[in-house]
Amino acid sequence: MVVFLNYMKYSAIPTAQSIVLHCQAKNISNIVISPGSRNAPLTIAFAENPFFTCYSIVDERCAAFFALGMAQQLKEPVVVLCTSGSALLNYYPAVAEAYFSNIPLLVISADRPVYKLGIGDGQTINQRNVFENHIRYSVNLKQDVSHATPKVLRYRSEWLSDRDVNDVQQEVQNYNDGELNLALEIALTTNSPVHINAPFEEPLYETLSKPSISPQISAIPTNIDSVIDLEQHRNIWKTSVRKMVLVGVNTSNAIKDVILEKLANDPSVMVLTETTSNIHHPNFFNSIDSLVAPIEMHADTELEFKKLKPEVLITFGGLIVSKKVKAFLRNHAPEHHWHIGGQFANDTFFCLEEHIKVSVNDFFDEMYSDNMGLKSDYFSHWNLVKQNYEVKREAYLREIPFSDFLAFEHILASVPNDYMLQLANSSTIRYTQLFNVNPTLKVFCNRGTSGIDGSTSTAIGASIVNSTPTLFITGDLSFFYDSNALWNNFLKPDFRIIVINNNGGGIFRILPGKENSVVFETYFETRHTLSAEHLCSMYGFNYLTANSSEELEEELSTFFNETGRPQLLEITTPTLKNDKILIDYFRFIS
Amino acid sequence: MVVFLNYMKYSAIPTAQSIVLHCQAKNISNIVISPGSRNAPLTIAFAENPFFTCYSIVDERCAAFFALGMAQQLKEPVVVLCTSGSALLNYYPAVAEAYFSNIPLLVISADRPVYKLGIGDGQTINQRNVFENHIRYSVNLKQDVSHATPKVLRYRSEWLSDRDVNDVQQEVQNYNDGELNLALEIALTTNSPVHINAPFEEPLYETLSKPSISPQISAIPTNIDSVIDLEQHRNIWKTSVRKMVLVGVNTSNAIKDVILEKLANDPSVMVLTETTSNIHHPNFFNSIDSLVAPIEMHADTELEFKKLKPEVLITFGGLIVSKKVKAFLRNHAPEHHWHIGGQFANDTFFCLEEHIKVSVNDFFDEMYSDNMGLKSDYFSHWNLVKQNYEVKREAYLREIPFSDFLAFEHILASVPNDYMLQLANSSTIRYTQLFNVNPTLKVFCNRGTSGIDGSTSTAIGASIVNSTPTLFITGDLSFFYDSNALWNNFLKPDFRIIVINNNGGGIFRILPGKENSVVFETYFETRHTLSAEHLCSMYGFNYLTANSSEELEEELSTFFNETGRPQLLEITTPTLKNDKILIDYFRFIS
Repeated sequence: MVVFLNYMKYSAIPTAQSIVLHCQAKNISNIVISPGSRNAPLTIAFAENPFFTCYSIVDERCAAFFALGMAQQLKEPVVVLCTSGSALLNYYPAVAEAYFSNIPLLVISADRPVYKLGIGDGQTINQRNVFENHIRYSVNLKQDVSHATPKVLRYRSEWLSDRDVNDVQQEVQNYNDGELNLALEIALTTNSPVHINAPFEEPLYETLSKPSISPQISAIPTNIDSVIDLEQHRNIWKTSVRKMVLVGVNTSNAIKDVILEKLANDPSVMVLTETTSNIHHPNFFNSIDSLVAPIEMHADTELEFKKLKPEVLITFGGLIVSKKVKAFLRNHAPEHHWHIGGQFANDTFFCLEEHIKVSVNDFFDEMYSDNMGLKSDYFSHWNLVKQNYEVKREAYLREIPFSDFLAFEHILASVPNDYMLQLANSSTIRYTQLFNVNPTLKVFCNRGTSGIDGSTSTAIGASIVNSTPTLFITGDLSFFYDSNALWNNFLKPDFRIIVINNNGGGIFRILPGKENSVVFETYFETRHTLSAEHLCSMYGFNYLTANSSEELEEELSTFFNETGRPQLLEITTPTLKNDKILIDYFRFIS
Repeated sequence: MVVFLNYMKYSAIPTAQSIVLHCQAKNISNIVISPGSRNAPLTIAFAENPFFTCYSIVDERCAAFFALGMAQQLKEPVVVLCTSGSALLNYYPAVAEAYFSNIPLLVISADRPVYKLGIGDGQTINQRNVFENHIRYSVNLKQDVSHATPKVLRYRSEWLSDRDVNDVQQEVQNYNDGELNLALEIALTTNSPVHINAPFEEPLYETLSKPSISPQISAIPTNIDSVIDLEQHRNIWKTSVRKMVLVGVNTSNAIKDVILEKLANDPSVMVLTETTSNIHHPNFFNSIDSLVAPIEMHADTELEFKKLKPEVLITFGGLIVSKKVKAFLRNHAPEHHWHIGGQFANDTFFCLEEHIKVSVNDFFDEMYSDNMGLKSDYFSHWNLVKQNYEVKREAYLREIPFSDFLAFEHILASVPNDYMLQLANSSTIRYTQLFNVNPTLKVFCNRGTSGIDGSTSTAIGASIVNSTPTLFITGDLSFFYDSNALWNNFLKPDFRIIVINNNGGGIFRILPGKENSVVFETYFETRHTLSAEHLCSMYGFNYLTANSSEELEEELSTFFNETGRPQLLEITTPTLKNDKILIDYFRFIS
């Protein structure tokens, strides 16, 4: 039941009321607002209603990633609201990330009245369906009409002409209610981004203390899982001696411990996890590249890959980070690839046989309901390989000089229990993948588009709705790219950033095929001499630096202590050594 | 003729060669590159060929606006090149600006090979036609095939199956040539943004010293102006006693002096110009709001508007800034509205009768080919009004305290002759409109979408291809929004920025209907306490400040002097006084 408190304000514009009441009825309460005038009817109505928690962020690119970070944690729709014009286009990088990462970002844009589109007015673009390539649903609400509606609109509208204005307005409301019900339902049930575009006519700032309309709000249908007969799958499962479970982006505690134990102790199963999989067991293979890369360097590569090749590949969760495992599985296709659960399944390895739409827990319960104790040395063989590279990795870390690689070891060993770890894309996520991460950490990274454009904003958004503290690790290009993320009034004093500054796009040095040249330094690595210090002064962060292992250890020993304000630690690593140290790592352990 | 120098490098990928050779043949030589790996075939080919001038900019949002600024000045296509994934989406604000401002921004995006789309690979989105709502043409090039093309592509392609690979590759090249010819032709002849999406398969870094293909490049057809009979228009023109010429965004020297003189001395003509019109004459009305706003405050508003209402309205150039003249003309529609020249005509006042596709010079030559010396007091009546408000404006300026309004007067009086003046949107352009601007200045502003998102980047891009120095004036929100613009290696030492910092979105205080409240300060004005000082330290600008008329005069007296590096002057004005001073101005002169 919606209670109308006396001090609330509603926009006098019916469509604005409708949007706010629909959100409230569906318990969507977090609203990230960027300034503007056209969106005033919604800004006022959201901000003047204590049901909603509103956040003001000026740069729409940051605002949308900030909202994305919140929605990533809350697993419920978060609204981003902006004015008309190019403001909306700045949401697009986050909308695409939400689309590929299945995050319910609810974009609401105010638009000019329909009769003022395409006539050369300011801050007026073609907003309708503008995210078409990366949105689950787009709504273009109809404009309210009244006796005050300008003649030109009445003339231009095919259905307004001679009809009673009240009848037409009722039709507008019915249409808008239907569309709003559908849009919110899609956002809530598919965890996908949805766009609502709402045209508003002036006056924009008039308010009422009670709504003048009663929108028809429909309940969200509860999803009834269809019963799927998995007997055939179980027969394959229980007779296959090489089964690989590869886990993509996944949230902590999604999989039951009993299932993890069964998988971990099944001799015919290898569980490959990534940093973003958020599941842990000593028997799991959590550094896929350390497993696969050395094989590529061996004389008997093909023979070993045949040993590694599974008969059955099971995937679940979101996108896979490791390029090496993708290349391996594409060239050594399993007989069966089933993707379990989720809304969508990707044919990442060109051999997807089936998307099995049951929960991961139900699937494995079913697979293990009738297990014969199959004999297999699949796990044990590769577990020896793993133990070998883990020992060698330790040895390697003891002999290399200060570098990106060594910095990541220091950092990951120092993060206190239960932190949320937010990772930027590019080298940050790839280095982290090489280490064992403290299993109490919850790890997140924008892998939907793998962009460098909004990781800081996402981390900040995630941090403010999370009860535990957050560490965000990023490279220099990604950090400076999203520098406006720090223009944010909601930063928590326990928020921590570590910038690994190797003076450019270090990842490009690692990629095969490039030559070292002025062209390389200028257009790939994009060498720079910037530091994060000035931004810290500007936005009120404590600023710390480290340029060696000793300094880093020293700084990390107090970095997570309580302070009055957020802290940033900038680690400078040697631009020209990092790539060789990484490549040599794979040689060393092979 | 294209000369193949020995030290050039061409990508081994035929489509990449094709793109580069097409650009070279069409004399498109400025390339703004953002870092990435997928675009390496093009980055190398552009950067290793001395025909092209390349610029490296990391943040794609800035890169696209920077290219837009160059194209705005050069009036020829400028390329922005990026890698696959969300990088491309960050171009969108500038693409929309280019679309509505008729600027030939040539977007080239590298894409993943077609068989890797939609399968959950990293940095892979749906790039095809992604700018559909705001692009003149989108090209999706076909992917090269060879004997090395993976089976999966050959399998997935409907036309590859059993055919000879060489035949198929020739078809790919023919298709791509056709599309590239068309895309570049559209960019060159319509001054519009165009998007070329090119899928590249690995290896990406292989090069050749000579191209392996010879693309079929067609010549651009020369536009032959159709002959339009303007006799009827001339008859209306020479018998109408109230003719209003309203000039939108327009470049200097586009209109012949003899025509300006004829218009200026025609008693039946009022020429209304904006700061962005870039035409000047003492008889023109260059502060439209100072003319229109006072009428709204008079007792006999309707009577005066009837006197001002033209029989014939002629518009030319781009979008109109003044909201007041739009509101006036929408409510007092002329009998005839003709838009002259340009690719497109907007029905801005809901009464457009005709888009006359001849040049503005030809049109007025025709109108004045047979002039009878019509009697009219249209000009003389309103010229008296103008003289009156100009005197009053002087008086008003002498009595107001330091404020946005007064700061603009000081600034505009101090800009040296022949500067390029780049203006941010929102209050900056609106304040400038109230003053007489030195007629030797060339004035630009992103009025296509009127966004606050890329004005600094645009100004920097424009400055580097302009031989005269540039002053960029901006408000604080717009400046901080585009702070990454300063992350730029091409800044000229004579580049100057003035930030009017009123601690938030000052324009919202001016808008009608708002109330002063916490909600207003938080979500509309978005109050902040940032200064530009740290950004200046970070990016190597001299930083100056002024907080009073005296300080401002003092700083301006040397601000444009030669210095070794760019300078920024931050002017702090009183947040709470500016709106009243502006509103009182209109009262004072009325």
